[in-house]
Amino acid sequence: MALKIDINCDMGESFGLYRIGNDEEIMNYVSSINVACGYHAGDPHVMRKTVALAKEHGVAIGAHPGFPDMVGFGRRRMLISEQEIKDYVTYQMGALREFVRITGQKLQHCKPHGQLYMWGQTDAKVARAILEAIAEMNDETIVFALEHSEFTELGRQMGIPIAKEGYADCEHTDAGSIVPIRTHAAAGDPDERAKRVVRMVTEKKVISDSGNDLDINIDTICVHGDTPGADVTVAKIANALKAAGVEIAPVSSFMK
Amino acid sequence: MALKIDINCDMGESFGLYRIGNDEEIMNYVSSINVACGYHAGDPHVMRKTVALAKEHGVAIGAHPGFPDMVGFGRRRMLISEQEIKDYVTYQMGALREFVRITGQKLQHCKPHGQLYMWGQTDAKVARAILEAIAEMNDETIVFALEHSEFTELGRQMGIPIAKEGYADCEHTDAGSIVPIRTHAAAGDPDERAKRVVRMVTEKKVISDSGNDLDINIDTICVHGDTPGADVTVAKIANALKAAGVEIAPVSSFMK
Amino acid sequence: MALKIDINCDMGESFGLYRIGNDEEIMNYVSSINVACGYHAGDPHVMRKTVALAKEHGVAIGAHPGFPDMVGFGRRRMLISEQEIKDYVTYQMGALREFVRITGQKLQHCKPHGQLYMWGQTDAKVARAILEAIAEMNDETIVFALEHSEFTELGRQMGIPIAKEGYADCEHTDAGSIVPIRTHAAAGDPDERAKRVVRMVTEKKVISDSGNDLDINIDTICVHGDTPGADVTVAKIANALKAAGVEIAPVSSFMK
Amino acid sequence: MALKIDINCDMGESFGLYRIGNDEEIMNYVSSINVACGYHAGDPHVMRKTVALAKEHGVAIGAHPGFPDMVGFGRRRMLISEQEIKDYVTYQMGALREFVRITGQKLQHCKPHGQLYMWGQTDAKVARAILEAIAEMNDETIVFALEHSEFTELGRQMGIPIAKEGYADCEHTDAGSIVPIRTHAAAGDPDERAKRVVRMVTEKKVISDSGNDLDINIDTICVHGDTPGADVTVAKIANALKAAGVEIAPVSSFMK
Repeated sequence: MALKIDINCDMGESFGLYRIGNDEEIMNYVSSINVACGYHAGDPHVMRKTVALAKEHGVAIGAHPGFPDMVGFGRRRMLISEQEIKDYVTYQMGALREFVRITGQKLQHCKPHGQLYMWGQTDAKVARAILEAIAEMNDETIVFALEHSEFTELGRQMGIPIAKEGYADCEHTDAGSIVPIRTHAAAGDPDERAKRVVRMVTEKKVISDSGNDLDINIDTICVHGDTPGADVTVAKIANALKAAGVEIAPVSSFMK
Repeated sequence: MALKIDINCDMGESFGLYRIGNDEEIMNYVSSINVACGYHAGDPHVMRKTVALAKEHGVAIGAHPGFPDMVGFGRRRMLISEQEIKDYVTYQMGALREFVRITGQKLQHCKPHGQLYMWGQTDAKVARAILEAIAEMNDETIVFALEHSEFTELGRQMGIPIAKEGYADCEHTDAGSIVPIRTHAAAGDPDERAKRVVRMVTEKKVISDSGNDLDINIDTICVHGDTPGADVTVAKIANALKAAGVEIAPVSSFMK
Repeated sequence: MALKIDINCDMGESFGLYRIGNDEEIMNYVSSINVACGYHAGDPHVMRKTVALAKEHGVAIGAHPGFPDMVGFGRRRMLISEQEIKDYVTYQMGALREFVRITGQKLQHCKPHGQLYMWGQTDAKVARAILEAIAEMNDETIVFALEHSEFTELGRQMGIPIAKEGYADCEHTDAGSIVPIRTHAAAGDPDERAKRVVRMVTEKKVISDSGNDLDINIDTICVHGDTPGADVTVAKIANALKAAGVEIAPVSSFMK
Repeated sequence: MALKIDINCDMGESFGLYRIGNDEEIMNYVSSINVACGYHAGDPHVMRKTVALAKEHGVAIGAHPGFPDMVGFGRRRMLISEQEIKDYVTYQMGALREFVRITGQKLQHCKPHGQLYMWGQTDAKVARAILEAIAEMNDETIVFALEHSEFTELGRQMGIPIAKEGYADCEHTDAGSIVPIRTHAAAGDPDERAKRVVRMVTEKKVISDSGNDLDINIDTICVHGDTPGADVTVAKIANALKAAGVEIAPVSSFMK
């Protein structure tokens, strides 16, 4: 059986007249998308269009909930309570689920956005709040997270499947985290990125930002859509994976 | 069989530290609530609490979508497109539906809020946009509206049940509309209001703001929760209806 | 003495990570800018940068107040009261004035944005509300508006100078209004636009959207910065005006 | 010469239809107010009314800038940059200054709100960002802060006058901080509060939350307006101070 991997990308981050990301082009190369839900980015009009576009391409849809902070794009940590986190996740998941539901599709996953994602990596209370919101929904939702994060063990305990992420355009650290890039101005050479991703998938190895060769075990590759040239990078990654005999498919199709 | 009527009230209009309405008290007397969805009022924390409170009381839940205008409380008309209306209704219905769904309940209805409601009364394009959003959801959602409005005939054509509203605390006009009250400072004497409601239900008659005796045919009585003394008024209305042998029940329990 | 004209452009419409307009490039060719104030576009960080950039280029600064509607970019009319209009103009003018003041500059003008501008063209109550807000400030603020609008006569009565605008990239109508372009996708051939502007300035004539040759009397030329290729268009316009012997200067330098 | 003290209270925290605080009543007893600027609370309409009310009462006006977080009322720390803090303070100060300026009054002071205030107490970078924004304004603005905070020494170095605050309705800690009360449900017995304030002013002593008798040196007494019964408490405090021979006056009238 062919090795399988998911490629995910944040989408639907445009807002009113404001445009971010070349969703139409990138949609050709990914198998899952994380759709902004109107809190850190996106709006109901963009959500409807993004969900329709995903359906056309047979791409699986996940929610990408973030802090209620459009001007900060969800990248500024807000010291909110666990209950507030839960309520924000539920609200955003629900809003997106409706757009998904009316097209006859299902929500595949939830990937927390920006600082909500980063905070949950290292703070068990935050990870738990997010997972509790998911557990309440009782809907087989997969959560996307780093393997070496608070989500992994908690997800196992709570019976929530965690899809482990590798990053195409962020550096991995020895501790198993990533180096977030506030503006994805310099995400590296596309060919080099593609090789790196193929190695992550086929050899389960990645060179960390300090030069060490790490073991890595991933279910899905994240590519940032707001990086200049992201469409070229993701195309090269998809093609390199296929050339290496890897099948690109939504996580829900191969995660047990 | 007893005559049945629904009593509905806007709820969950508090926001952050800001409080509007005595939801805890009023919940004792109504059979349906219209829950603000975070656009003109409400927030995810308030939504969660309001849905839980409704469950405790066995009260049916509907969405109360409005314009994205918190400072104007959705009472300032925004000249937005039909597509924008649809998307806002879908978004808000979805966000609320998730809070309802995780408690094992169902959304009973949708009542557009404020100027979205008033605009849809007289503008067929607006009414159609709202009903199209509901139709897409394919979920037996009842829409609350005035009988003499654009919603009624369109709802019939589109197969969407319309619950016809009577107002306890607004004046009805000869044309079948109502006189909106921007601040519900003076909603009238509670006893007089209660008598008026009983007459609307049992005799199907109401005196208009110009003094004419109108025929009126209603499924649900609206009481505004942000009126000072609303809790007293609604209690008197509920008691007067019961004393007249009318059963108070959610519209979904008796609308065919 | 050389014929003088002002060229104005909306600027500072970026927001958080979202970018609109090539402000850095366009700043080279204009003499006045209309700076978004955080209601329909812009944010405090963008405002600070835009004001600093204007100072570097010796460009005069005006406020560009709009409706509180970021997702609609101030292009959706909101039926708000005259008092609300006044308060929004005052708030936005003040916020921008502080950024201008701390750099040792002065606010030159106010140009209402989007539907606030269009609404004021034809509704005397709206025009009056805006001008009353300006009058209260008692600060020699010039208001930018179309000559054939409610602003002109009211401004004369109230002693507020009105700079009359011509549009480089919108069509003028026989009635003296303009045809707003929601997305400035097709603003016409830059060379043709430049010729048209030179004619407006030197011959005081423009061909309307119905093909009539209109008299036009303008103090400032508006170029939209969010039009694709706006930087090329404005450069051509500026160069064509200079080649025709017209001096480009802020309106405050030549309006009496 | 009589001992003088300022009494300050947060005001203008209402928002749209939402009401917080009994500003009309409390205005009778305070000498300075901290006006919300539309970020954590307040709106332009409330700002205009609050400034007019202050003028009627001869009360000095200060800005009360907070985080851009209405639903959190500025009480949730947002990990924003120093530049972002500066820009938010400048924006909010400017917006309020315009409302103050058009009534012929001057801004007396700036008191950061909620978590911006608390964060600046202990984080020198935050305090510096706020003070740099004030310094740029070059307008003799006084900053309100706790004596034992990062603001005091920095203010001295930067030449910005710091008015030292005592709290009527929060407990002081041995370290010289206060215990913030998220909801001011139980601010203590008004008579006891009044005695405590008189002692702070006349004996320069206060009992801390751990029971120690602390030295305290204050220029202004803060009373929270959103506490139930705040109007009664502030009246008792004002009367007790007068009975003790203390004159209540804006800080700008007696700070050198």
